[in-house]
Amino acid sequence: MNKLEIIPVGGFPEVREGADIAALFLEAARRSRVELADRDVVVVKQKIVSKAEGRLVRLADVEPGRDARKLAEAQGKDPRLVELVLRESLRVVRAGHGVIITETKHRLVCANSGVDRSNVRRGYAALLPADPDGSARRIRRELEEATGRKVAVIISDTFGRPWRRGQTDVAIGCSGIDPLLSYLGKTDRYGYELRVTEPAVVDEIAGAAELATGKLSRIPAAIVRGAAYARGERGVRSIAIEREKDLFR
Amino acid sequence: MNKLEIIPVGGFPEVREGADIAALFLEAARRSRVELADRDVVVVKQKIVSKAEGRLVRLADVEPGRDARKLAEAQGKDPRLVELVLRESLRVVRAGHGVIITETKHRLVCANSGVDRSNVRRGYAALLPADPDGSARRIRRELEEATGRKVAVIISDTFGRPWRRGQTDVAIGCSGIDPLLSYLGKTDRYGYELRVTEPAVVDEIAGAAELATGKLSRIPAAIVRGAAYARGERGVRSIAIEREKDLFR
Repeated sequence: MNKLEIIPVGGFPEVREGADIAALFLEAARRSRVELADRDVVVVKQKIVSKAEGRLVRLADVEPGRDARKLAEAQGKDPRLVELVLRESLRVVRAGHGVIITETKHRLVCANSGVDRSNVRRGYAALLPADPDGSARRIRRELEEATGRKVAVIISDTFGRPWRRGQTDVAIGCSGIDPLLSYLGKTDRYGYELRVTEPAVVDEIAGAAELATGKLSRIPAAIVRGAAYARGERGVRSIAIEREKDLFR
Repeated sequence: MNKLEIIPVGGFPEVREGADIAALFLEAARRSRVELADRDVVVVKQKIVSKAEGRLVRLADVEPGRDARKLAEAQGKDPRLVELVLRESLRVVRAGHGVIITETKHRLVCANSGVDRSNVRRGYAALLPADPDGSARRIRRELEEATGRKVAVIISDTFGRPWRRGQTDVAIGCSGIDPLLSYLGKTDRYGYELRVTEPAVVDEIAGAAELATGKLSRIPAAIVRGAAYARGERGVRSIAIEREKDLFR
């Protein structure tokens, strides 16, 4: 195996609706004197993609319904925010201790359907992109057209885990990379089939990128160079847990 | 933020009970012409630590009890293996579709209490180290004494997730690094307190290391260089979810 590099790409301007994320990325990379290479994985944080896609909602415009008001009261939350959380969700997975875990319309399982007010101007909340795999695809195509390189794109967000404190960045959308690196049917050197057959490389890459970008500095993107992955176009949505195998339903 | 590097360290011999993991790592690094630097994080896969600590059990010596036989039958598993899974666990979290999720004695939540037959000689199963934080501490101290560098050590294993297909490497033990990078009380540039306050850097680093080591090649360790983290000694055990906040209990 080879050495990996994770290169932070910062210096983006404030991203507004209609902004061209691929162009902003390339401009920022140029200023940092970084050039894309074949098989680079470009990781872009969800928040700037949501902003570019106009997924900011003014809370004053949100009319909370009965379910949202009830849930907001029980969890000590703003009912307008909870209304957005419910609108973005297929179902509430769990609620308690001020945390609402939902399954989103994209079949992501996360707190508050990914709806969030941090790094957004006051009075607004950001929703996740409507189709994060599609967002990744558009950004990848534009990067490839502009540079002539074959690259992959991951849109990342920060999720908590039900079984451990702390949060890690994971992939919510991807393009040009298969979410899993399959070892199905491969055997170890004792002849046993491997127990771990499908490392979720998109999530490991999203988490690795977070190590180079952090939360406070204005670095909404990174390049992960040297990771082994398979090219593919089925997106993060394809690794949502099968409902019949979901032990936590 | 700075660039990160992830350097695979392979070429270990077969690890036997009593082996000195720190010495084997330094020998392998020397052959690869890699020198440890201050603040490097050395990630070591659980399996070689378990082998060095004599945590292999011969299945023929295991007498399955009534609970193990029942659970093994329901899940289509070897009753001797299930007996080990139960012995290593505090409780069974969920069981179904041939998967047994437990909370281990170290308060890890994972499949089969981490008991596993891959990359182990036939007829044997490997248990997790009895105290992975302690294992990490011993390896770190020895690395620091041998090199004069201040480093951190993470013991990693591969866990599935209840909410998504695929597996990622996470930390099961650590030393010289605090598991979380706290942003508590920090505000974004709009003056809001950050929603994400505690990135689990140990898990992001363990996952990043997996990208450089893979599952098949004989690379049981990696160096992650350039990651921001706080030095600390409370271990992975300290980020087990508080029981009263566990929404999945």
